[in-house]
Amino acid sequence: MSTQRYGTIHGVGLGPGSPDLMSVRADRLVRTAGQIAFFRKQGRSGHARRIVDGLLRPDAIEFAMEYPVTTEIPLSDPRYKTCLSDFYARCTARLMETARSGEDVVVLCEGDPFFYGSFMHLHSRLSGHVPVEVVPGITGMAGAWNATGLPFTWGDDVLTVAMATLPESELVRRIRDTDALVVMKIGRNLPKLRRAVAAAGREDAAWLVEHAAMPGQSVIRLVDAKNVAPYFSIMLIHGQGRRP
Amino acid sequence: MSTQRYGTIHGVGLGPGSPDLMSVRADRLVRTAGQIAFFRKQGRSGHARRIVDGLLRPDAIEFAMEYPVTTEIPLSDPRYKTCLSDFYARCTARLMETARSGEDVVVLCEGDPFFYGSFMHLHSRLSGHVPVEVVPGITGMAGAWNATGLPFTWGDDVLTVAMATLPESELVRRIRDTDALVVMKIGRNLPKLRRAVAAAGREDAAWLVEHAAMPGQSVIRLVDAKNVAPYFSIMLIHGQGRRP
Repeated sequence: MSTQRYGTIHGVGLGPGSPDLMSVRADRLVRTAGQIAFFRKQGRSGHARRIVDGLLRPDAIEFAMEYPVTTEIPLSDPRYKTCLSDFYARCTARLMETARSGEDVVVLCEGDPFFYGSFMHLHSRLSGHVPVEVVPGITGMAGAWNATGLPFTWGDDVLTVAMATLPESELVRRIRDTDALVVMKIGRNLPKLRRAVAAAGREDAAWLVEHAAMPGQSVIRLVDAKNVAPYFSIMLIHGQGRRP
Repeated sequence: MSTQRYGTIHGVGLGPGSPDLMSVRADRLVRTAGQIAFFRKQGRSGHARRIVDGLLRPDAIEFAMEYPVTTEIPLSDPRYKTCLSDFYARCTARLMETARSGEDVVVLCEGDPFFYGSFMHLHSRLSGHVPVEVVPGITGMAGAWNATGLPFTWGDDVLTVAMATLPESELVRRIRDTDALVVMKIGRNLPKLRRAVAAAGREDAAWLVEHAAMPGQSVIRLVDAKNVAPYFSIMLIHGQGRRP
């Protein structure tokens, strides 16, 4: 491929939410970007976009990539896959067109772009066609364990990261078989997750963190949680490993 | 406790190694610090200290906390625990003295301070006595998966983070029972880890990353590795989960 006149697509990790938890490299890319792109739900301002409020060049061109569907169609429905696949293809086409015109684009990514990130669906479609660079970021889970104010993993602790979308029996098994635990993608799965934590006998050790490192940050014991939580809330069980 | 005239001990995550992967908050604290502290092995300059080379105030006071022992005494030997415990108590006493004199101290931490970090041993001793603040950082493992250039975890993938210090049979079991994998604290445990990965049938999927996001970064297939690796090298197996 000839990339001499091509712009670069930068997948930039913004960290857990507070603008000063962006890396110095991310901060510089965001502030100087002529074109930015970001995912959001239709009708919302978008988490990633909100993090960079007030940092962008006044003349920056913004491309809001609006999910055609998020939770309305079940994951198991084949239409879900087709619908999202078409969406990512359209976003990719537009980004590729911009890169081929010689312009860079900064794609805003919450947390770390390669850790359960939507950007990965663009990355796999862009790679090999136009230059793509990724800037790692502080993960949402690191923002969450920092918010509890307690060290998270010690010594030989095993850490398991699991999604609350897993079947309940699988969650129980995973919770029983780990020292430290992170559960993401909670949202409407919270009642199932609470039953799984209780069945594994770890209720007293579990924390629920919402909006870590953002305005409205909340850190509560899971037992004190209501039965609804934002999709981006994170459940934690701290490790208790070896310490001198 | 009366903290009105006390300084604050800041545990500051520096990220995986490249200075511009520090957060904006960390960068500001490091550049303005009057006093810094960092761990290092005797006779070495120290990883954390090297990351901030050229960023410090010329008049910054430096406190090098030199491990009395790292790998010379086996973990199972009771002298190991006593020796390290005394060491952390001495470091804590010195930091507490500085804070009580009204001075802040920035403790330099590789990666994220609460993720398998030595700072946690100070944090648990300082908390409740003097003000302690923690700045999260990009973990070494995020630096490592970013170095491979490939997205790491997708959809419902389960991620397991395990230390190579675990028994071989336990490593085999953990590798068999996960989608994505991170193994840390490798060093002299590399031959054992390679046997475990082979026994679990995941040899073809495993990467070894050394010095991620640092000069001398190396990303190789585990099958191409020699039988020695730095203690801070990281082994990865990427998840292969759901993707539209």
